[in-house]
Amino acid sequence: MENTIPSLENLIDQFAALPGIGRKTASRLAYRVLAMTVEDAAEFADAIVTARGKIVQCPLCHNLTEEEQCRICGDDRRDTSVICVVETPQDVNAFEKTREYKGLYHVLHGLISPIDGIGPEQLYIKELITRSGNDEVKEVIMATNPTIEGESTAIYISKLIKPLGVKVTRLAYGMPVGGNLEYADEITLYRALAGRNEI
Amino acid sequence: MENTIPSLENLIDQFAALPGIGRKTASRLAYRVLAMTVEDAAEFADAIVTARGKIVQCPLCHNLTEEEQCRICGDDRRDTSVICVVETPQDVNAFEKTREYKGLYHVLHGLISPIDGIGPEQLYIKELITRSGNDEVKEVIMATNPTIEGESTAIYISKLIKPLGVKVTRLAYGMPVGGNLEYADEITLYRALAGRNEI
Repeated sequence: MENTIPSLENLIDQFAALPGIGRKTASRLAYRVLAMTVEDAAEFADAIVTARGKIVQCPLCHNLTEEEQCRICGDDRRDTSVICVVETPQDVNAFEKTREYKGLYHVLHGLISPIDGIGPEQLYIKELITRSGNDEVKEVIMATNPTIEGESTAIYISKLIKPLGVKVTRLAYGMPVGGNLEYADEITLYRALAGRNEI
Repeated sequence: MENTIPSLENLIDQFAALPGIGRKTASRLAYRVLAMTVEDAAEFADAIVTARGKIVQCPLCHNLTEEEQCRICGDDRRDTSVICVVETPQDVNAFEKTREYKGLYHVLHGLISPIDGIGPEQLYIKELITRSGNDEVKEVIMATNPTIEGESTAIYISKLIKPLGVKVTRLAYGMPVGGNLEYADEITLYRALAGRNEI
């Protein structure tokens, strides 16, 4: 393009580097920023710097927090005998939304994936084993995604935890609520059948 | 959600305020920012403040620029006898990409839209009339979008410019290149037929 404005191009590049944002969308977002008041733009920029600067990992569960310890680990009403192992902090939010789970979490910040060069030592697995060795812990729930990487990470971790005498469980497989049998894939259907319960 | 981190929520709000970004996407983008290095986050924030701070409107055509005058108005190889009137700076880029148009532009920064409370006085119409009154100008191309607002803005402006003895033209209507007759709407097809050319 002949009509290039360096600072605009730079802003478009920044937006386009975000996941799921193509050049067209990035350009639309950049023009939106130009239409903001100077104060609003400064506030947006500040939100980025502040969030990145303030938010750290909880030293125990590696969930995100602004404080010394995350709210869940710091809440003494939580059941400290159960640890739910998830891939990302977003997964913690998903479980919290159910309002049913009262135990603690452990965020791995990834899954074992040799193809992406991610081995167990790059995840918070060692820390999980240490936590699981605590006498208080009775159950570790493997709540990684039902994908190849999620499965193999769950199996890998369970093999390390079982010798500690802690019960290791996995999320149930089956039909999603509101799902349609006609469109369910065979493996899901097979798992739903195999895991059937008496009513 | 119980697990709320104020600075994260704020960043999600900021992203969600951008056009076409819902809460889910905003959340994904915010977590991406948290995964950036502190330097990258600072660079992103700086790109926002810099672009918003540096970019101003060209005093002549109201296109965006970082300089005193936009590159197009400042380019003496451009044909100053033609002005192409568009709604947004993005439209200027769209025309520049064709590499065919060599005239100048005039960016209205909106369209007349009584339903949104936008009248002619909120757009750069007065400035366009002043420019069109210049003896050098022979033609004004109304290149607003082919929508109700685009049409009425074009008609409104043409009525003001014609008395100055300047030719006013409108973009051709017809089939988009690569389009499919079967899926064309009746009005487009009617306009394509009415505007047919000898081959």
